[in-house]
Amino acid sequence: MAESTDVKVDVLRKFTEDVFTTLGVPEEDAKITTDVLLAANRRGINSHGVARLKRYVGYIKDNKMTPKTELKVLKETPVSLLISAGNGIGQVAGYKTMNMVIDKTKKNGLCFATVKDSNHYGIAGYYSMMALKDDLLGISLTNSAPLVLPTFGKQAVLGTNPISIAAPTKNENPFVLDMATSTVPRGKLEVYNRMGKPIPDAWATDEKGRPTVEVAKVLDNMLNRKGGGLLPLGGGTEEMGSHKGYGLSAMVDILSGVLSGGAFGSIIYSNKQAAGVCHFLGAIDPDIFITKDEFKGNMDKFIGILRDSEKAEGQDKIYIAGEKEFKKADEQKETVSISNKVLENMKEIGKDLGVEAPF
Amino acid sequence: MAESTDVKVDVLRKFTEDVFTTLGVPEEDAKITTDVLLAANRRGINSHGVARLKRYVGYIKDNKMTPKTELKVLKETPVSLLISAGNGIGQVAGYKTMNMVIDKTKKNGLCFATVKDSNHYGIAGYYSMMALKDDLLGISLTNSAPLVLPTFGKQAVLGTNPISIAAPTKNENPFVLDMATSTVPRGKLEVYNRMGKPIPDAWATDEKGRPTVEVAKVLDNMLNRKGGGLLPLGGGTEEMGSHKGYGLSAMVDILSGVLSGGAFGSIIYSNKQAAGVCHFLGAIDPDIFITKDEFKGNMDKFIGILRDSEKAEGQDKIYIAGEKEFKKADEQKETVSISNKVLENMKEIGKDLGVEAPF
Repeated sequence: MAESTDVKVDVLRKFTEDVFTTLGVPEEDAKITTDVLLAANRRGINSHGVARLKRYVGYIKDNKMTPKTELKVLKETPVSLLISAGNGIGQVAGYKTMNMVIDKTKKNGLCFATVKDSNHYGIAGYYSMMALKDDLLGISLTNSAPLVLPTFGKQAVLGTNPISIAAPTKNENPFVLDMATSTVPRGKLEVYNRMGKPIPDAWATDEKGRPTVEVAKVLDNMLNRKGGGLLPLGGGTEEMGSHKGYGLSAMVDILSGVLSGGAFGSIIYSNKQAAGVCHFLGAIDPDIFITKDEFKGNMDKFIGILRDSEKAEGQDKIYIAGEKEFKKADEQKETVSISNKVLENMKEIGKDLGVEAPF
Repeated sequence: MAESTDVKVDVLRKFTEDVFTTLGVPEEDAKITTDVLLAANRRGINSHGVARLKRYVGYIKDNKMTPKTELKVLKETPVSLLISAGNGIGQVAGYKTMNMVIDKTKKNGLCFATVKDSNHYGIAGYYSMMALKDDLLGISLTNSAPLVLPTFGKQAVLGTNPISIAAPTKNENPFVLDMATSTVPRGKLEVYNRMGKPIPDAWATDEKGRPTVEVAKVLDNMLNRKGGGLLPLGGGTEEMGSHKGYGLSAMVDILSGVLSGGAFGSIIYSNKQAAGVCHFLGAIDPDIFITKDEFKGNMDKFIGILRDSEKAEGQDKIYIAGEKEFKKADEQKETVSISNKVLENMKEIGKDLGVEAPF
């Protein structure tokens, strides 16, 4: 039996929007949230696509996330915004905040926003990429549920805290870095678990904090908070740079959680009625330094240097950040491949809410 | 015979300043440059301390770096600066630019500067830490000589491109991340080579781009540009996150080199008469989001969460970014340990320039 099925994007879009509106999410917000989820699926990042719907629906139904996202600007200057998302939907908070950031950047050259009291906002790259249409650099960081260990720790007190930056180009695809600061996200462990394959020992630890290849045990420990978790980029030893991944993860949490006055570290999701996720969003207009045109031309040149540099033995291609995802999104313009398990979950949601699930 | 000798900081300071002024560096600039070098030694980062003096002296004597650093502000807004360092000394460019950044940040809440036509500026953390005295967040990035391979490449077209961020605290030591985006810097290979010890295979490749443990060969290849080089944070495979280290290195080059209109990638140091190194320096006043006091209190709380979290089996301490360096700098307030080879080089410089070397 096939593990996944090709489904029309339009069909998934209508279903997902209908699910959200049925739960009381305003139509505009339902469209925003759905678009962020489907962008992830189209880019091949299925862990952050409609697979998340079940969790979001659960949060709204259990009053852990409010369907009506009301952003409050708590403080602002010409180049900054402090926003409370009032425990609304992370995608709506991310999208609307990034639009405000872009507006201020067009006027004043750059802008940074911190957002507190939010929820999971999907792929960080969605928001950094919003800046590209105006030829701006976009930046998007978020803290997240504690799943990652500090170097030498066995207690997950940091999130996978991703870093995304998007830079416009002239003829090349934009440069879009979008990376968790752990070696791999939890979703990757789940893939190996389904295949019955041991994981490399730099990905996660057992409940005592010892690097392990036993993926089923790691996932069980994480689910039941028995100890252990994901290792930072660089694995478990300083020799391999574990302290760097750990430092980057902490940096993301400082800019998102600490700087917004919201939740950080193990405080996130510790209040069962409000996750408290925080984001850091920014944009920079190249015009305040050189010109947009010069910047984009130089980006093409930089990308050319990287791509055309000599390949290692046995390799025939050097990739640019975002390249694989752009290719995937292009292939999956109309149809995306969704795991059958996720489709089953969505059908159940549809049945429960009385929303037709024609897939 | 001992490999290194303890030398008084004051003695090294006077000698190094005298070397610079003898070469035509203005007294203020000599003091700045020397202080950045000695800060590295005191913090235990000897690769970026007075060991660099020989190279700097060579550059100035060969007219590859001008002793009189004249910064030109090419463009500015209330929150940004584009600066040309006119092929002056990187430390002077970094220090003076960061002071301008801090001034604008105190007035306007944040500021970012790009600097082009500069040279090696020493430890990135020196400049991010300058923001701490005013309770600001400091950011410091720089591109550097191409020594690092893109994932799947065998040609070094990226620098070790460090990321530094400093965040003020109340009672704790400040959080100071200062990390190369390669798994290790070249200096680490040199240490292993001197010990005759093989390197882990995620650190560097041979001339064909194959991960290797043969450190002497790697260093020879790098010196003679025969191919191969340092691997990004995450090593040589996507499984271990190589593409993330590579992406971060590219991000640093985009913000420093591309955004300043200066040199980037393999262009750096390709002009034998001017390295063309570029920096990105920034500061953020927490007051534009919450308050300085709240931020510093929450930083203490965040650091407490990390440090007090449960330790992995066999470990008794979780470190905070910068902690080891603060401890070292405290121990080495008056005396630093310098390798005998570096001291020999310095004595030769002294002899050559007629500067007394009383160590």
